[in-house]
Amino acid sequence: MKYILILLFSGIVANAQIKKEQLNLMPWPQTINLSEGTFALNKNFRINITGNPSPRIFGGATRFLRRLDGRTGLFFEQDFLTKLNSAPTAQLQINCTKSGKIGLYEDESYHLDIKQNQITINATSDLGALHGLETLLQMLQNNSTSYYFPVSQISDFPRFTWRGLMMDVARHFQPIDVVKRNLDALAAMKMNVFHWHLVDDQGWRIEMKKHPKLTDLASDGSFYTQEEIKNIVKYADERGILIVPEIDVPGHASAILTAYPEIGSKVTIVSSGNSENSSKAAVVTTYSIERNSGVFSPTLDPSNPKTYQLLSEIFDEVCPLFPGAYFHIGGDENEGKDWDSNPKIQEFKKKNKLATNHELQTYFTMQLVPMLKKHGKQLMGWEEIMTKNMSKDAIIHSWRGPNEGVGVGESLTAAVKNGYKTVLSNGYYVDLVLGVESHYLNDPMPKNVSLTAEEKARILGGEATMWSELVTPTTIDSRLWPRTAAIAERLWSAEDITDMNSLRKRLAVVSFRLEELGLTHIKNRDVLLRNIANNQNITALADFSNICEPLKVYTRNKGGVEYQTYSPFTLFADACVPDASDAVAFNAVVNEYLANKTSENKAKVTVFLNKWIGLSPSLISLSANAPLIQPILPLAKNLSDLSQQLVNVLDNKATVAPAILNDLLSKCNSKDYGDVELAVYGSLKKLIE
Amino acid sequence: MKYILILLFSGIVANAQIKKEQLNLMPWPQTINLSEGTFALNKNFRINITGNPSPRIFGGATRFLRRLDGRTGLFFEQDFLTKLNSAPTAQLQINCTKSGKIGLYEDESYHLDIKQNQITINATSDLGALHGLETLLQMLQNNSTSYYFPVSQISDFPRFTWRGLMMDVARHFQPIDVVKRNLDALAAMKMNVFHWHLVDDQGWRIEMKKHPKLTDLASDGSFYTQEEIKNIVKYADERGILIVPEIDVPGHASAILTAYPEIGSKVTIVSSGNSENSSKAAVVTTYSIERNSGVFSPTLDPSNPKTYQLLSEIFDEVCPLFPGAYFHIGGDENEGKDWDSNPKIQEFKKKNKLATNHELQTYFTMQLVPMLKKHGKQLMGWEEIMTKNMSKDAIIHSWRGPNEGVGVGESLTAAVKNGYKTVLSNGYYVDLVLGVESHYLNDPMPKNVSLTAEEKARILGGEATMWSELVTPTTIDSRLWPRTAAIAERLWSAEDITDMNSLRKRLAVVSFRLEELGLTHIKNRDVLLRNIANNQNITALADFSNICEPLKVYTRNKGGVEYQTYSPFTLFADACVPDASDAVAFNAVVNEYLANKTSENKAKVTVFLNKWIGLSPSLISLSANAPLIQPILPLAKNLSDLSQQLVNVLDNKATVAPAILNDLLSKCNSKDYGDVELAVYGSLKKLIE
Repeated sequence: MKYILILLFSGIVANAQIKKEQLNLMPWPQTINLSEGTFALNKNFRINITGNPSPRIFGGATRFLRRLDGRTGLFFEQDFLTKLNSAPTAQLQINCTKSGKIGLYEDESYHLDIKQNQITINATSDLGALHGLETLLQMLQNNSTSYYFPVSQISDFPRFTWRGLMMDVARHFQPIDVVKRNLDALAAMKMNVFHWHLVDDQGWRIEMKKHPKLTDLASDGSFYTQEEIKNIVKYADERGILIVPEIDVPGHASAILTAYPEIGSKVTIVSSGNSENSSKAAVVTTYSIERNSGVFSPTLDPSNPKTYQLLSEIFDEVCPLFPGAYFHIGGDENEGKDWDSNPKIQEFKKKNKLATNHELQTYFTMQLVPMLKKHGKQLMGWEEIMTKNMSKDAIIHSWRGPNEGVGVGESLTAAVKNGYKTVLSNGYYVDLVLGVESHYLNDPMPKNVSLTAEEKARILGGEATMWSELVTPTTIDSRLWPRTAAIAERLWSAEDITDMNSLRKRLAVVSFRLEELGLTHIKNRDVLLRNIANNQNITALADFSNICEPLKVYTRNKGGVEYQTYSPFTLFADACVPDASDAVAFNAVVNEYLANKTSENKAKVTVFLNKWIGLSPSLISLSANAPLIQPILPLAKNLSDLSQQLVNVLDNKATVAPAILNDLLSKCNSKDYGDVELAVYGSLKKLIE
Repeated sequence: MKYILILLFSGIVANAQIKKEQLNLMPWPQTINLSEGTFALNKNFRINITGNPSPRIFGGATRFLRRLDGRTGLFFEQDFLTKLNSAPTAQLQINCTKSGKIGLYEDESYHLDIKQNQITINATSDLGALHGLETLLQMLQNNSTSYYFPVSQISDFPRFTWRGLMMDVARHFQPIDVVKRNLDALAAMKMNVFHWHLVDDQGWRIEMKKHPKLTDLASDGSFYTQEEIKNIVKYADERGILIVPEIDVPGHASAILTAYPEIGSKVTIVSSGNSENSSKAAVVTTYSIERNSGVFSPTLDPSNPKTYQLLSEIFDEVCPLFPGAYFHIGGDENEGKDWDSNPKIQEFKKKNKLATNHELQTYFTMQLVPMLKKHGKQLMGWEEIMTKNMSKDAIIHSWRGPNEGVGVGESLTAAVKNGYKTVLSNGYYVDLVLGVESHYLNDPMPKNVSLTAEEKARILGGEATMWSELVTPTTIDSRLWPRTAAIAERLWSAEDITDMNSLRKRLAVVSFRLEELGLTHIKNRDVLLRNIANNQNITALADFSNICEPLKVYTRNKGGVEYQTYSPFTLFADACVPDASDAVAFNAVVNEYLANKTSENKAKVTVFLNKWIGLSPSLISLSANAPLIQPILPLAKNLSDLSQQLVNVLDNKATVAPAILNDLLSKCNSKDYGDVELAVYGSLKKLIE
C-alpha cells in the first residue's frame, strides 16, 4: 500500500507543469514556449515523413525511433522507415520542403510543435528535421511509470554555420568505430563539421593507390582504406555532417618525408675519403616517423618541382573521396629551420623575390590552390597561411592565442578585416584538459572590436580541436565529452546563453545521454581504474579520481618527450577528467559555507573532508596488490593530512597554526604525483584564507 | 612509517614462491613446472625474434608488448617489432622453425621457459609462439611495487584442432568492431576458428557485386563490404584464427528469397475472374525479411536450376574472400513444409527417386559440393545434412541434443562411425544463457561409447555458438564472455582438467583481463543500468542484477514473437548475466553453513539476506523517477519478504510456519517479472529444507 502511494504521488508530481529551466536541452533552442498538457508516449507511436527530403531522413527517423524505444522500453511496432507517407496517421509528422545539401549556409532551421495528440516537425531541409528529432529526444520526460513530452513549441536555427570538431588521427590513430561514435555525438549536439586531421609527423593515415609507400613506410600499419573513408563520409552525410580532410603541409612533414625523403628540405653533408683528402657531398636526408610530441623541423622543399608533383597526385587521389567543398592543408608551425640551412632553397627565395620564409610558404601554398580548385575544393589553412599574397578565397583557421603569445581573437579579427572567411579554434582546444567554463564563455564574435556586418558574416563559426598526443581510442571520448557539447551550444545558441549553473546542470544529463548513444567517456574510466586497481574494488580510486584532474596545457608530457606515441596511456591521469565532479561539488559547498557559516553548511563541507581523510588508508591498502597506485599515494596522503586538520579546525576540536595549514595546503598544490593535480586545491585555499 | 612497513611486508609476501594453484592460466597448459626465483620486469624489457616465422609474429609480439606495457605502466622503450633479430640481447627470445599455416592440424605447440634473466619461447610455428605470448601475459605477477614472472617451464599444445566460436550476425548485425574485439578474445583464449554465420532469415550480410539485390532488399542496410570481410580475414589471420563462413541453405532462406523470390518453394495460387467464371494460377510468392525468431518455412526450391545457378554465382564471389579450406552451408532446420505443398517439387522427387525430403535435401547439398570444391573448399553443414548419400568429405556439425529430443552426443557418434569428421556444438550454446558448468563439463569425446582411434581422430573439436536473437552489439560480449573461455579450456586442455572451483576462480580473473583487452561485457552492464535507473545511482540495481539471471533456453522470447529484431534490448534482463556473481557466492556460503552451522557461517549468510531486505525499498525509491525499474519491483519485494523471514528464523527471533516460508519461497521462483529469474532461489530452497 505504501508502495502504491509512492507511485501515485510521484506520478502526480512529475506530470506537473514543467518549467523551462527544468529542461535539459543542449544546445539551447532559439525560442521555446511551454504550455500545459503532455503528449503521452506508448507502443503505438509511429512516424510519418512527407515533403521532399533527402533519403537521409529515413535513416535518421529510424535511428530516433530505436533510441526512443531503447530508452523507454516500449516496444514500438514500427520497424524501419524507408519511404514517404508510409504512416499517414502517425503521431509524429515530419515535413521537409527540400533535400538538405551538406555544406555551409544550408537552412538547418526547424519548428517542433508538440500537441497533446500530435507532434510535428517542420523544416526546410531534412538537416533541420534531424536537428528537430534530437531536440525532441531531449524533451522526453517521465514520471514513475510512463514517458511523455510536454506540450510546447520550439523554433530553432543555428547562430553560426560552421560548428565543428577537429580530430587528430595522426598522433594516435583512431579506428573507424571511434570516428563513427563521435560523429553520432556531433549530430546529437547539432554540430555539422568534422575536420579530419589525417596527416602529421607521427603518421600518414590514408590509403594511397598510386603512392603506397606513404602507408607502407609511414603509418605503422594504422590507416584508413579509401573505402573506409568513403564509408565514413557517407556515415557523416547521413547525420548532416560535412567532412573537411586535412593534409598538413609543408611542415609537420616527418611522415611524408619518411616515404619520400627526396622532397625534404634538410641538407645532409657526408664526408668521404680520408682526413687529408676528403670531399663533402650532399646526400638525401633520411627521415623517420616521429614518436614524440612537439614542433619538428622536417619540412617539404618548396623549391623542388617534385614536391608539387607529389602533392598534386595526392590531391587527385584524396579529393574525390570527399564530396565537400573544403580542403584543409594545415600550414601551421613551420619554423623554416631546414629552409634557412638549405642553400638551394635560399637561392630559390632570392630568385623569386621572396623576402621571408613566410613569403616562401605563401608561394608554396598558392601552388596548392589550383590543385584543389581543379577538384572543386576551396583551400583552408591554419592562421599562419595568412599573408598579403594569400588568396582571399582561403579560409583562415584561427588557433593561436595567449598561450602562443598572441592576443585573444587577434588573427580572427585580422582575417575578417583582410577579407578572409575564418573559423575560430583558439579557446576550443579540448585536448588542453581545461575546465568547461573557459570554452563555453569563449565567443567566436570578438568583443571590444568594431566589425562591419560584412566582416562579422565572415566569421563562419568555430571548431573544437582534439589533438591526440595524449589520448588513445580508450580515452579520447573522455577528453572530448561532455565539454565539446558546451562548445556546440556556444556555436548554435544565442549569444546571451551563458549561465554556467544552467550549463553545468544540463551538461551532466547530456553526458549521460551521450553514453546512451555509444560514447565511452564514462564507462572507460572504470575500465582504467579496474586495471590500475588490479581487479580490486575501485570505489576509493574512483572517489580520488573525482577530485583529481590530469595536468593541463601539455604540462603532462614534459617537453613532449616523456611520453611516446606508444607509451602506456592506462594510468591514473588517463582515468581523470577536467571538471572533476566532486571538485565542482565541493567548490559549491565551500562557497555556500563561506557565504553563510551555518552548522548545516559546515556539515556539507566536512562530509567531503572526512571522505578524503579515509581515502589515503584505503588507497594504501589497495596498493599492496597494485603497483600502479603507488605514484598517487603521496598526494592522497597530503590531502588526507590537510583534511584532518581542517576538520579539527572547523569542529573547533583544535587550533592549528596558520603556518601548518599553509604548509599542508601547499603540499596539496603539487603536480609531482601521477601526472595529476588536486582539483579541490582552490576550494581548500578559500577555506583556509 | 606504518605505510612503509606495509609496503615492505606485502613485497616480501607477494614474492614468495608461487604455487601452481595460484596461477590464473586459461586454458590450463599441458605441463607446467614452477621453480624458485623470478624474472623482474623493467622498462628495458625487449623482445627478439629469430627463426623462420610468418610476419604475423611481429604484430603479435608488438601487441603483446603494448598490452604488457599498458598493464604495468613501465614505459618500455621498444616500439614496433618489424624484423628478425632486431634486438639480439633482448630478455625475451622467440624462436619459430616455420611459418604457421592457418587451418586445421597445424602445429600450435610451444615451450615457454622463464629463467631469472631470460625468457624464451620456442615453437614450431608462429601460431604456437602467439599462444606462448598469451600464456606469458597470464603468468605476470606483482607485489606492491613491481611486476615479475615466476621462474617456470611450460610445454603446451592443444587437445583438439578445432576450437571455435560461431557468431550469428544475421539476426542482429554485429559491426566490425564487435567482430574484431571478439577475435582478440578468441586469440587470448587460444581458440583458432571463427565461424561466421552470415546469412539467415533475418538478413543477408555480405556485399555482392553481381547480385546487389541481396543487400539492397534483404539487409536493412547492415552488411559487410567485401573489403571489410577481407580486412576481418586478415585480422583473424594475424591472430592465428581461421574464418569459416556460413551461408545457410536451403532453409532459413527468408532473406535470400526476399531478393530472389523466384527460387522459393512456396506455391501461391491466385484466383482471377469472378466467382462464377474463375481461374486459378500459380504466381511467384513474395517473401520478406523475418523480424521474429524461430524456424520458418521459406526454403529454396531444389528442383529449380535457377537456384543452383544463383548459389554457384554466390560461391564464386564469396569463396575467394575466405582463404580457408572450409565453407559452411548450414542445412539445418528445413522442415520441408513448402516442399510438401509444391506439386512441381513432389514431381521432381519422384523423378529423381528421392523418397523423403531428407533425401531431397541431400540431393540439393550434393550439388553444392563441386561448386565449393572448385574454390578448394570442403563443405561443412549442421548435422541434418548427414544421410547415407552425403559425401564423406563433408564435415558434420553436431548441434542437437536433449533439448531437441536427441540423446547427448548421438549425432557426433553417428558421424564418426559413418566416417565423417565432426565438430561438436551441442552443449556449447552460450546464447542459452546457462551457467558455465554445463559447458565446461561437456566433453567432445563421448563417454560410454567405444570408439576406435580412427573414429576418435575424426572428432575435430568443438564450437561455442552465439545465436543473436536476443543480443545487440552492446550486450553480445556479456553472453559470450567469460563463459566461452571455459569452453576454450575444454577444447585445449587435458581431459582431466575439470575442477569447477579452480575454473571459477580463474574465470573471474580471465573476465577482468578480457575487459582489459577491449571486451565490453563488464562495462556495458553499467551503461544499461544507468539507462534503466535514468541516471540515478545504480548501486541497488547492480546489487539486484548480481543475483538475477535472464530467462534461459529461449524462454525469454515467448514463442519467438514477443521480441522482434528491432525490439529494445536495453532492459534489466539484458544487464543480467548467467552465473550471477552474488548468487554463486551466496551458494557457497549456504553450503558452508549447512555443512557447519557455526555462528560465523550463519553471519556470512545473513549478510546477504540483510542486503536483499534493503534492496526492495531502494529500488522502489529509484523507480519514482525510472519507469524501467517497475517490472522488477515485485520480484525484489518477494526476495525481501523471504529474506526478512529467514533472518528472523536464523536469528531465532521468531518462528515462522513452514507453509509461510514455502509460500514466500515459491514466489521467489517466479519467471513473471522483467524476463529474469532469481539465481539465488536454489540456495534459498536449501536453507529452508
